[in-house]
Amino acid sequence: MERHHFEEDLKTLKQRLLNMGALVEERVHLAVQALMERRADLAEQVVAGDRVVNELQIEIDDRCLKLLALQQPMASDLRFITCAMKINADLERIGDQAVNVAQNALRLLPHPPLRALIDVPRMAELAQAMTRDSLDAFVRKDAALARRVLRRDDEVDQLKDQVFRVLLTYMMADPGTIERALGLILVSRNLERIADHATNIAEDVIFLVEAKDVRHHHESEEEER
Amino acid sequence: MERHHFEEDLKTLKQRLLNMGALVEERVHLAVQALMERRADLAEQVVAGDRVVNELQIEIDDRCLKLLALQQPMASDLRFITCAMKINADLERIGDQAVNVAQNALRLLPHPPLRALIDVPRMAELAQAMTRDSLDAFVRKDAALARRVLRRDDEVDQLKDQVFRVLLTYMMADPGTIERALGLILVSRNLERIADHATNIAEDVIFLVEAKDVRHHHESEEEER
Repeated sequence: MERHHFEEDLKTLKQRLLNMGALVEERVHLAVQALMERRADLAEQVVAGDRVVNELQIEIDDRCLKLLALQQPMASDLRFITCAMKINADLERIGDQAVNVAQNALRLLPHPPLRALIDVPRMAELAQAMTRDSLDAFVRKDAALARRVLRRDDEVDQLKDQVFRVLLTYMMADPGTIERALGLILVSRNLERIADHATNIAEDVIFLVEAKDVRHHHESEEEER
Repeated sequence: MERHHFEEDLKTLKQRLLNMGALVEERVHLAVQALMERRADLAEQVVAGDRVVNELQIEIDDRCLKLLALQQPMASDLRFITCAMKINADLERIGDQAVNVAQNALRLLPHPPLRALIDVPRMAELAQAMTRDSLDAFVRKDAALARRVLRRDDEVDQLKDQVFRVLLTYMMADPGTIERALGLILVSRNLERIADHATNIAEDVIFLVEAKDVRHHHESEEEER
């Protein structure tokens, strides 16, 4: 096959990854909306729709394998395709976390709401923005944007610790809140995992762009719980 | 480079992945031991030793990229190498979870122990065995063994739910146990994630051996929280 076809195939691959990113981001958004607006219908929609994400993941993985097999790409193309495979896996796991948020929301909804969702909505916002930006960074080969994603991971970790501390106080003050507080703690962990996956993607992008391995060199990592 | 060298390189790659697997498994074991025997020194050892795992991950990833670039392998070799890259990423994340278990153990140790660790030790045992078996399945290209790993993931999920229910009861009955019970719930989630990574590895192995995509087709997945 010629170089021309190869370029076309790479373009399609990029497009499919963007589709995958938009899809999982939308699902995270819906799951969080279900929690905040107390809408079981949205949560159920998220739980039911996971199949589409899984199918898209397999399709993208196949594309990558075929490109590797048929094109025998060199150097930067090779890194691009193996990077796409890793990003694909992270996106699929972000989709899994959207399902987990939705399932935790479904468990919370039968109970009256807690006084406040604390910083959970802010965590959700950050995790979604990180997902979007890490993927934008990939498509534009923008290492600076990827680095900004890494920095926001520290903020997510701080919020997670704060959510934990506040909800612990609630539970100790009023055992009647235990189940709901626990549910929110689990949601905050789901959101933290989404931010972690976005961080993985950002690290892969920096490696791709700068052929430099930044994994395990930013400070936030050690603090993850 | 000749086929002979290629075979040698593949053998080395396999060996390094086994080293990586043994390393992270040992670290999971130490972290759980720290929790069960209440030994802060072991937990601190796990937290401090994460760097070695990270360095090994980067080394293995480099090997894979070089094999792909220099050898331009076809079909089954190609699948083997991309599979190795994915397994490598899952092993590194199992290492991260060992750190998380150790950090949660360190938070628990200042408090007097709860009545029992419930099913946490059993979960730990299962998660470790799944890690070991998924990697054995990879090295021996044993799809039957990989399938047994998938089945055990359901058991881990059931234990996780059981741990959650029992600890919830503790907390509601005696708010003085809230912090400790929460800590154990988080450990059980860490162990569940380890089992998830082992499951990912097993699925990759089945794909490698049977060139058939089993991802998203076993039942346990939908139940993950």
